[in-house]
Amino acid sequence: MGSGMVENAAGRSVPRTVNGLDQVPYKGVGEHVPETAKHAPRIRSCRDYPASGDKRVANLATALEKCGLSDGMVISTHHHFRNGDQVALMALEAAAGLGAKDLMWFPSASFPCHEPVIDLMDRGVVHHIEGSMNGPLGRHCSEGKMRGLGVLRSHGGRWQAIQDGEVKIDIAVIAAPTADPFGNCDGSHGPSACGSLGFALADSVHAERVIVVTDNLVPFPCIPWQIQGNNVDYVVEVESVGDPSKIVSGTTQITKSPDRLLTAEYVARFIRDTGIMKDGFSFQAGAGGIALAFVQHLKEMMKAAGVKARFVRGGSTQYLVDLLKDELTDYILDGQTFDLAGVESIASDPRHVATSPFTSYNYHGKGNFASLVDATVLGATEVDVNFNANVVTHSDGVLLHGIGGWQNCLFAGCTILAIPSFRDRIPIIVDEVATVTGPSELIDVIVTERGVAINPRREDLLERVVGSDLPVRTIEEIKVEVEGIVGGPPQKAVLTDEPVAVVKWVDGTVLDTVWKVAD
Amino acid sequence: MGSGMVENAAGRSVPRTVNGLDQVPYKGVGEHVPETAKHAPRIRSCRDYPASGDKRVANLATALEKCGLSDGMVISTHHHFRNGDQVALMALEAAAGLGAKDLMWFPSASFPCHEPVIDLMDRGVVHHIEGSMNGPLGRHCSEGKMRGLGVLRSHGGRWQAIQDGEVKIDIAVIAAPTADPFGNCDGSHGPSACGSLGFALADSVHAERVIVVTDNLVPFPCIPWQIQGNNVDYVVEVESVGDPSKIVSGTTQITKSPDRLLTAEYVARFIRDTGIMKDGFSFQAGAGGIALAFVQHLKEMMKAAGVKARFVRGGSTQYLVDLLKDELTDYILDGQTFDLAGVESIASDPRHVATSPFTSYNYHGKGNFASLVDATVLGATEVDVNFNANVVTHSDGVLLHGIGGWQNCLFAGCTILAIPSFRDRIPIIVDEVATVTGPSELIDVIVTERGVAINPRREDLLERVVGSDLPVRTIEEIKVEVEGIVGGPPQKAVLTDEPVAVVKWVDGTVLDTVWKVAD
Repeated sequence: MGSGMVENAAGRSVPRTVNGLDQVPYKGVGEHVPETAKHAPRIRSCRDYPASGDKRVANLATALEKCGLSDGMVISTHHHFRNGDQVALMALEAAAGLGAKDLMWFPSASFPCHEPVIDLMDRGVVHHIEGSMNGPLGRHCSEGKMRGLGVLRSHGGRWQAIQDGEVKIDIAVIAAPTADPFGNCDGSHGPSACGSLGFALADSVHAERVIVVTDNLVPFPCIPWQIQGNNVDYVVEVESVGDPSKIVSGTTQITKSPDRLLTAEYVARFIRDTGIMKDGFSFQAGAGGIALAFVQHLKEMMKAAGVKARFVRGGSTQYLVDLLKDELTDYILDGQTFDLAGVESIASDPRHVATSPFTSYNYHGKGNFASLVDATVLGATEVDVNFNANVVTHSDGVLLHGIGGWQNCLFAGCTILAIPSFRDRIPIIVDEVATVTGPSELIDVIVTERGVAINPRREDLLERVVGSDLPVRTIEEIKVEVEGIVGGPPQKAVLTDEPVAVVKWVDGTVLDTVWKVAD
Repeated sequence: MGSGMVENAAGRSVPRTVNGLDQVPYKGVGEHVPETAKHAPRIRSCRDYPASGDKRVANLATALEKCGLSDGMVISTHHHFRNGDQVALMALEAAAGLGAKDLMWFPSASFPCHEPVIDLMDRGVVHHIEGSMNGPLGRHCSEGKMRGLGVLRSHGGRWQAIQDGEVKIDIAVIAAPTADPFGNCDGSHGPSACGSLGFALADSVHAERVIVVTDNLVPFPCIPWQIQGNNVDYVVEVESVGDPSKIVSGTTQITKSPDRLLTAEYVARFIRDTGIMKDGFSFQAGAGGIALAFVQHLKEMMKAAGVKARFVRGGSTQYLVDLLKDELTDYILDGQTFDLAGVESIASDPRHVATSPFTSYNYHGKGNFASLVDATVLGATEVDVNFNANVVTHSDGVLLHGIGGWQNCLFAGCTILAIPSFRDRIPIIVDEVATVTGPSELIDVIVTERGVAINPRREDLLERVVGSDLPVRTIEEIKVEVEGIVGGPPQKAVLTDEPVAVVKWVDGTVLDTVWKVAD
């Protein structure tokens, strides 16, 4: 272990400092005690803002200049437009045009559409990225080509980092499907409607300067206003904030793989047979193929048993919206809106409620919604025999995914990882994961097409499945079976001892390190 | 002037320190520049809150104890239940029962129902009050019987003081007509529904500890949640939070006085004849008799001219709700809900939107809504010939009223004070007001039953009324006429040189002093 490294409570080697800032190594779930006050931006005064409320300026470059853009600043954007986003690049290019250098780009997530940021990094405009890196940017980071370390945070961890002042945003650029000249804005209406704007909320509250970018300006007041103009400095109108066809998918597809459909069915049966499915219960399901299929199975079981949920959480999709319409849940508490049905529903149904990483995921709040969810169904790239799981790298150690809300959701009453037992002939259950993203004590059940493995810590769940006809097995049994099929455990990743990124835990401590891949 | 006093930019003598804290004397509108960061409470962690989300404790005493109640703390409450509130007293009595001393009570406003706090001050439980004092508490303060100085702030000034850390709330007690065990709460539903809970929002965000008190607990999630449970420490259920008949009035009455009806008509005609009334305009009107009558007049004029407002602001009442229903405005932006029609509307009509002192009034934000309002119609206890106005004391200098949103509303495009020319044979237009609450440069028009006086600074308005048949006169003319009727100017108040309270300006500076009345 290098002199700059320390072993944390998960037994992982992590850097003592990251991008010049001292770090706290992971201490265990609930072991870190924050001891300072929240971060707050400078006090502003109405004297410095137009009495008319009209904060429009000609373009992003003007807005950035007026915000005092200078070298080394932290520029944040959000990922509500997903792979259809055009605003983050527009902002960074505008900053480049103004000659800015060494910026830290702090997106809530980045997507393949942001690949041109590699060029901005090569040109010295962007120093490094802290935020989920999906696809090409993750690979670029893995190859050690970024000047700073990547910092991967969960959605809740990003809120925590902003709130706690670990990341001080100089300028937040918020792309909005609808806005007024005062800066009030919302995501549920307009030609680029994307649903909730919850990921930009922390930025709007804590950043020193906030720019709203919209392609759909309405007269004051923009109702509803998920982002409040009272936190906004400038408003910029552009032709288009993004490609609507990539902002939301018209349809989100249920898996067609028989193995994955079987996995989904096992998940639903597990939730039913353990008695988690009962009147007033709650669950969270993402937009992955298995999760969507699970919802359909559970829906039929709920109908058959006459059970109604109090709330469901998403990633909202047609499938969750149907539950609401069919009166099978009182509410959708929506973290992110994934398809057109979700956008339409959140715009029109008061029972479909936008949440934010503050309400749902921030571990440094007075509680959050995640621990109130009875069952959450998640994916993983790898799981080890001790129930530690990985979502950011594959077994080759290459960074390809962000954490999303995954870490935060682990605090649900029952956390279920629904995963195929192998992908491309590479087993998913391993002796040790390449990157610990979630600690074993929070991961309760692994469901694969080959059986259901319950974490031995959850004796209560083990008892509750006695008598069920589910294929309950030990995780080792499933591992051995899969290795028999594919011809042994996966090859160990070939990595260097050079850190390229760190994985933060929900409390801001450093859980693990992502290492540079060997050439 | 005593050694502890200094003359401010309004020419008023104000204390250099108030309750032990150094003060900034008023410097003029828009002259004070804040130079620090906002106040933020300590970082909390989910580790210290129940994973189930159930934050209920047995009673207020238990909650206060768990919040670490100790001598000298700042306890805040809000006034959404107006003269029907039972929770503020319940909280202060519970604190007394725990032996607490020298508390600072920080209500958003106090009412005659809070008169028993005088006894708590006599017993040493409450040291002093900072907040609007309506009625008996104001008189108690005027008589110099409070140990500390009263501090009167506008609704926006209260947000500013909390946000800026001028007042650090230790424990906020928030009475809620509906709440869930997590602490999410809302005011628009339940047997004690009062409409918006906007006045408690700053407290919930900035206080160290927050207790929600409700008589209508619902299962998580309480939808909508105007106050977020993520800021709440404990939830207490009580039999009743207040007397619903005093929380909202079934009806709010238009004045029957012919003089006041005439004043209301002049106001409406002024807004029409100056061209302020045009498509897309906005106005604010309170719940006073003249204001309500003005709305009825303006409504008829809007109908006749085919004009629709973009938004109206209240104090919402039946009269504003009717405008919304009749499609004469796109939105009601509601600061406070005054009658049952307002409560029903805000609970059910998405065009009737709850605001907060942050959105509407906070001068230390990036703008606020008040300056976007085209015309605002307010009252006053006194106005001087230079257009300075008073709302907190009468000409006898006795403190009897709070500032409410009055100071904040002065930033509207056109501020109109609609007042009777005399009350109880005491002229309202004077040479010098007893207490400056609003500076002359922000007060544009005085409307009385004897004529309309326009501030000479507003040459634009003077030009626009040329040709109107409104009785436009100078303020001096009206003053002379009234003094002729009642037999001369009012008697000068008999006051001591001992300060009992200060009036803050919207930026936290000290605008004026309220003096102890002579025995």
